[in-house]
Amino acid sequence: MATLIAPEHASPVEDAEALRKAFQGWGTDEKAVISILGHRTATQRQLIRHAYEEIYKEDLIKRLESELSGDFEKAVYRWILDPTDRDAVLLNVAIKHSPIPDYRVIVEISCIRSPEEFLAVKRAYQIRYKRSIEEDLASHTKGDIRKLLFALVSTFRYDGNEINARLANSEADVLRNAIKEREFNHEEIIRIVSTRSKLQLLATLNHYKDDYETSITKHLVDGPANDYLVALRTAIRCFNDPQKYYEKVIRNALNKPGTDEDALTRVIVTTAEKDLEVIKELYYKRNTVSLHKAVGKHTSGDYKAFLRALLGKED
Amino acid sequence: MATLIAPEHASPVEDAEALRKAFQGWGTDEKAVISILGHRTATQRQLIRHAYEEIYKEDLIKRLESELSGDFEKAVYRWILDPTDRDAVLLNVAIKHSPIPDYRVIVEISCIRSPEEFLAVKRAYQIRYKRSIEEDLASHTKGDIRKLLFALVSTFRYDGNEINARLANSEADVLRNAIKEREFNHEEIIRIVSTRSKLQLLATLNHYKDDYETSITKHLVDGPANDYLVALRTAIRCFNDPQKYYEKVIRNALNKPGTDEDALTRVIVTTAEKDLEVIKELYYKRNTVSLHKAVGKHTSGDYKAFLRALLGKED
Repeated sequence: MATLIAPEHASPVEDAEALRKAFQGWGTDEKAVISILGHRTATQRQLIRHAYEEIYKEDLIKRLESELSGDFEKAVYRWILDPTDRDAVLLNVAIKHSPIPDYRVIVEISCIRSPEEFLAVKRAYQIRYKRSIEEDLASHTKGDIRKLLFALVSTFRYDGNEINARLANSEADVLRNAIKEREFNHEEIIRIVSTRSKLQLLATLNHYKDDYETSITKHLVDGPANDYLVALRTAIRCFNDPQKYYEKVIRNALNKPGTDEDALTRVIVTTAEKDLEVIKELYYKRNTVSLHKAVGKHTSGDYKAFLRALLGKED
Repeated sequence: MATLIAPEHASPVEDAEALRKAFQGWGTDEKAVISILGHRTATQRQLIRHAYEEIYKEDLIKRLESELSGDFEKAVYRWILDPTDRDAVLLNVAIKHSPIPDYRVIVEISCIRSPEEFLAVKRAYQIRYKRSIEEDLASHTKGDIRKLLFALVSTFRYDGNEINARLANSEADVLRNAIKEREFNHEEIIRIVSTRSKLQLLATLNHYKDDYETSITKHLVDGPANDYLVALRTAIRCFNDPQKYYEKVIRNALNKPGTDEDALTRVIVTTAEKDLEVIKELYYKRNTVSLHKAVGKHTSGDYKAFLRALLGKED
């Protein structure tokens, strides 16, 4: 369930005019920007961009970048993009992240989006960067982490309902055998996690749990901490329960000294029109404080106001 | 240029009726089958299938399978399928080929089709088999050959015109360094060949040729013959010059003791509506005998008549 509160009907022209007004004069009227953009759906935001460009012969996104600053600017920029295009940008930033790629973002987007959604992201990436995600990722990574991420990003998974129960059973054993030998980077683990349909993989992970009385992620912690293992566990968490995964990302982002604004913004912006309501509930259950309050405590100013607008009704 | 000779207008209903007549009575009128199906475009063939199903409540493909036999049946079956669906079938047969997958077919289809064409094949594969090509391929292969084929099959390549000349130059060196060390299975070779856009890859291969005065395929023969190396060379040939590659497949298929009918059928059937005319010319230049004559010499009966129908005009 989405948290975004948007009017059913909004006039793109009036919104564009109001934004223009907010930009004019001395300083920017950030509150006006939030009251408009923080309450419009993806389609409405695209219509505002078109109307603004049409009327003022100026790119709204560029104007926003010059009017706003800091985490607030970043959040508005992420938010105003079409969701597919936004994923392409997030992936590109993650791949080029210095000194090493931000593996978690790559895993998150490639594992949580549906195969068709992710294919649309690949197309958006190519239109924007004139290269494929696959080639950029492969040329910025090496070794085991490349094997895993490349396979996650490149496979066009089957998304139908057919499940092969016998296969789930036998592949649960394959996983267990590799893990028992502490071969966490075993080719077969990567193959199963990165190529099987999500439903098939869930069936396999359930078999694993039934047969060995522990979830595979618990078994994967036994190993030495390294990027590959973290990425593998992240992938399995994303398949198993995306909302639970998102709750944890937000929790870690808020609890970090200094707050991880990039992660916080990413999760709120990418889920506000999808399942942020569920994530909010999970957050409350886990932390006995509402996400509204937690965000209020760890952020400030226009950035705080904007995130809280996307978070919707206070509980 | 295609070789297929098909009327601009054909009546699917009349064709369906004529086929029905050819099936009736004692034995099948194979000549009638060839004179119809051997001279219809992919769209016309689909319309005939629909008309036949509509009128006789029977699947034309199943009926053909029971009426025909041997290489002729196989060729007609391959031919009557929609080209995208046909590729899916060819890939599935190649992956399940015993005792080991038919690597060359997998390389051929994944490297010669455009990214969009190959994506359509992936969709057709999933509709037909309720699994992805990626998972079937990965679970039927191992080691280096899996790394290469999996990357070839899974990547959704960039298909635009942008080429990075500096990158082509530096990646030609990367290839050369790996080959000089005789690390033919080097991760970087697989990465470059399987993820770069075809135009970018051609630029890299040209740089290679300019800098080292030999084509990379020549350098790749130095190594011990193995499936991986054959697959890698095949991929590079398919990118470099698909028609030249096809000519060689046909030449080898015809020169083999006993003739490789599967390969011969595959190339003729998949190119008759595309570039078989060019392949015929290359064949003549290379062998100083026309492909018509060569096919006539190495095949017989209805199979021969059918292939020669698809080969079009005799030179």
